[in-house]
Amino acid sequence: MDERLKQQISFIMEIDKLKRITRQSYITGAERKETDTDHSWHLAMMCALLSEYANEKIDVLHTMTMVLIHDIVEIDAGDTYAYDQTGNSTKREREVRAADRIFSLLPQDQARQMRDLWEEFEEGSTPEARFANTLDKIQPIMLNDATGGLAWREHDVKVSQVMGRNARTGEGSEKLWEYAKSLIDKNTGTNIRPE
Amino acid sequence: MDERLKQQISFIMEIDKLKRITRQSYITGAERKETDTDHSWHLAMMCALLSEYANEKIDVLHTMTMVLIHDIVEIDAGDTYAYDQTGNSTKREREVRAADRIFSLLPQDQARQMRDLWEEFEEGSTPEARFANTLDKIQPIMLNDATGGLAWREHDVKVSQVMGRNARTGEGSEKLWEYAKSLIDKNTGTNIRPE
Repeated sequence: MDERLKQQISFIMEIDKLKRITRQSYITGAERKETDTDHSWHLAMMCALLSEYANEKIDVLHTMTMVLIHDIVEIDAGDTYAYDQTGNSTKREREVRAADRIFSLLPQDQARQMRDLWEEFEEGSTPEARFANTLDKIQPIMLNDATGGLAWREHDVKVSQVMGRNARTGEGSEKLWEYAKSLIDKNTGTNIRPE
Repeated sequence: MDERLKQQISFIMEIDKLKRITRQSYITGAERKETDTDHSWHLAMMCALLSEYANEKIDVLHTMTMVLIHDIVEIDAGDTYAYDQTGNSTKREREVRAADRIFSLLPQDQARQMRDLWEEFEEGSTPEARFANTLDKIQPIMLNDATGGLAWREHDVKVSQVMGRNARTGEGSEKLWEYAKSLIDKNTGTNIRPE
């Protein structure tokens, strides 16, 4: 097997480990928490179906690839819960180290391309990254609403935390943020603490 | 919320159930079998990284969307193991019924588009569908090889069955089929019965 394909296969097998990373959101039947691969697949489907609601015109393939890879660094860095302050203070450093290791398994051109795509997502300063970040924020709200706020209740989440975390969610899609806000309102006082 | 977005959200929440469908392949650590969402995400990543090996030029977004949705019918129809003869005799009928129900949750234009994409995958007669089918066939071979042929051994699979099932795998990518064949050869006599 030639070196290029060998590197590509090595990356493809390595990222299989993303299937082991558990998030805090429950799947709709509430049988279990979802994994990063569940979540990434779900965002890619949302990207395929909801791109018409992006505030600015987006390149769908670029955005879809971005959501597919956006959590790959969690193979090494783990999933940091949105409302975990300590975890979030070291998140960037842990994730950069992970990106250095994992993306460099690929041939140089693809390593660069995937690494850039991940940094683009993290920075959130292109229309594609803004839309990807919107999807990444609204999907757990949808799952929380569908499961009676299970993850919100487990973590005793306050509405001020939810709103703070979603300060920029409307930047990718006003329409989808309006929808997510309606779900937050609906759950405030029952599944989200009204503080 | 307007009717169009309502239909899209209803589909997006319905397909969350794909996270519950278990396949026969084990994830690389062999801790558990993979789900349809794990598998679909993995194929989409392979599509992003390996499209250069397609026998014919392919539209990557089209192919990626195809692999993301190709198993959605299994929400109703279940996963039919490759070497389950009885299951495979009723598979098409069960899957068509599932497609009728699930895709029709979407607004009409997207329902048509997703249904067509699924039928295109099933027929395997475009360059995109041929490549998607190649990925769908080689990914479980890669996982089997990585887990000491666990699923092959559990089902006592013969090399004639594997080769029969892969009769058309080279049509999407000769290069990737060559690679998969090398894995089959390597496992024949130990993890695959040499018959």
